[in-house]
Amino acid sequence: MSFVSSWEVRVTWGDCDPARIVFYPNYLVWFDHATHLLMERIDCAHKALMDRYGIIGLPIADVSARFLRPSRWDDHLNIESRIESCTEKFFTVLHQGYRDGRPMVEGREVRFLARRHPEDPERLVADPIPAELAQLFMQ
Amino acid sequence: MSFVSSWEVRVTWGDCDPARIVFYPNYLVWFDHATHLLMERIDCAHKALMDRYGIIGLPIADVSARFLRPSRWDDHLNIESRIESCTEKFFTVLHQGYRDGRPMVEGREVRFLARRHPEDPERLVADPIPAELAQLFMQ
Amino acid sequence: MSFVSSWEVRVTWGDCDPARIVFYPNYLVWFDHATHLLMERIDCAHKALMDRYGIIGLPIADVSARFLRPSRWDDHLNIESRIESCTEKFFTVLHQGYRDGRPMVEGREVRFLARRHPEDPERLVADPIPAELAQLFMQ
Amino acid sequence: MSFVSSWEVRVTWGDCDPARIVFYPNYLVWFDHATHLLMERIDCAHKALMDRYGIIGLPIADVSARFLRPSRWDDHLNIESRIESCTEKFFTVLHQGYRDGRPMVEGREVRFLARRHPEDPERLVADPIPAELAQLFMQ
Repeated sequence: MSFVSSWEVRVTWGDCDPARIVFYPNYLVWFDHATHLLMERIDCAHKALMDRYGIIGLPIADVSARFLRPSRWDDHLNIESRIESCTEKFFTVLHQGYRDGRPMVEGREVRFLARRHPEDPERLVADPIPAELAQLFMQ
Repeated sequence: MSFVSSWEVRVTWGDCDPARIVFYPNYLVWFDHATHLLMERIDCAHKALMDRYGIIGLPIADVSARFLRPSRWDDHLNIESRIESCTEKFFTVLHQGYRDGRPMVEGREVRFLARRHPEDPERLVADPIPAELAQLFMQ
Repeated sequence: MSFVSSWEVRVTWGDCDPARIVFYPNYLVWFDHATHLLMERIDCAHKALMDRYGIIGLPIADVSARFLRPSRWDDHLNIESRIESCTEKFFTVLHQGYRDGRPMVEGREVRFLARRHPEDPERLVADPIPAELAQLFMQ
Repeated sequence: MSFVSSWEVRVTWGDCDPARIVFYPNYLVWFDHATHLLMERIDCAHKALMDRYGIIGLPIADVSARFLRPSRWDDHLNIESRIESCTEKFFTVLHQGYRDGRPMVEGREVRFLARRHPEDPERLVADPIPAELAQLFMQ
């Protein structure tokens, strides 16, 4: 089982929409930050990876989320994040959000180590994930 | 085949992150608005549905997206949105984003007509989709 | 001197723009939340005020901000917020942001207790600030 | 009188908060984009300026806004933007937002041509505004 990183989000007024529940793209904003925190805690902070491997970041190839219960202004959500799997070039981060222990939201981000394409600066290419990183990911 | 609604997004400076590509939750912000536009164009505008059926909105049960090519500041994306399927209580909106005719992003939102739970105001319940709506959805 | 409420913001990847500094409207997002925190800590939480006085919220009449130094991804900012002044119908919240003790940003929000206009639901009217509130504001 | 650039914003569901009015930092997001549009229309597009003068962007030194009437979901706002003044190193953009001809919001951004400080990469320095630019600004 891989390392689990926890982070508490407090839902703000500005996170909510006229139905008085979280405007859903904000969950993805939190997932993004939760991944940054997770990476940092397993000694793979984005900045360090960018410097060490010359990549431009860890963009998303694929994302999905299921919304089980609506969250509201002033809710405290506990987001638990872990790396669920890792292939040659992609890794999947699982995020699970709870309020008072009840599941509220669940999502998966598939990410990769991105380099600009050598001939076409408009495109990104996925680097193979170095063995030492894969090991940190799945520790 | 259901009705296709088109909408052009211009990627702004503030939509982009330090890797100089779109910060990915913004695609979902655009999907949300693209769904509003689609609904309006098939004569199912959110406000009208809220008034007619006494619902609080059309929240998301599930979302997924694939990012095929990165979009950058000043790109013009054409988002094409349609209702792909409709079950008893849920409908799926397919969004496809293009730049100069090339696919950039594709996503699906599963939505429902939400009512507050009669006993537990913290929960939402999905209304059955009225037949006349299902017909407009799949026209 | 009125009560000072402190809050630490960690600048996220998504808060920054292609110049790799904070996209400036995000400072105002933080000011808004900092005001919510301040109000809560002086026993004037928004929700309580909305219930007690039948208002729809504490919207902004006026905002200003000066940006002294740019903030970057991963910076920790300490936001100090206090109510600077209070007139018959308006109060001013001063926010000062520091990184490692150095001033980075300073802003002021002028807010009011808003009620819908009795005849024109499109307009807001400012309630007089009750004496007991003014006292809590300036304690 | 300087050139006036117009832009129509349609207020989306996600722009609004639980009070069902625009969450105020979104006005500043619109001001930022309105400035980009204005600059482009007076032949001073950000990208061109960044290439021509080697600057990292046109950040904000100061911003202020007055909110005259609340805007709501589905409102169409017309934002009129112009350069109001220009000093040796700073220029002020005035934004005025109208709905059906009635003033809703007014704001001012003070911006500068930013270069990284040669010795301290954490700081920005303001370039003098070249004469040919000042001329385009005030045409």
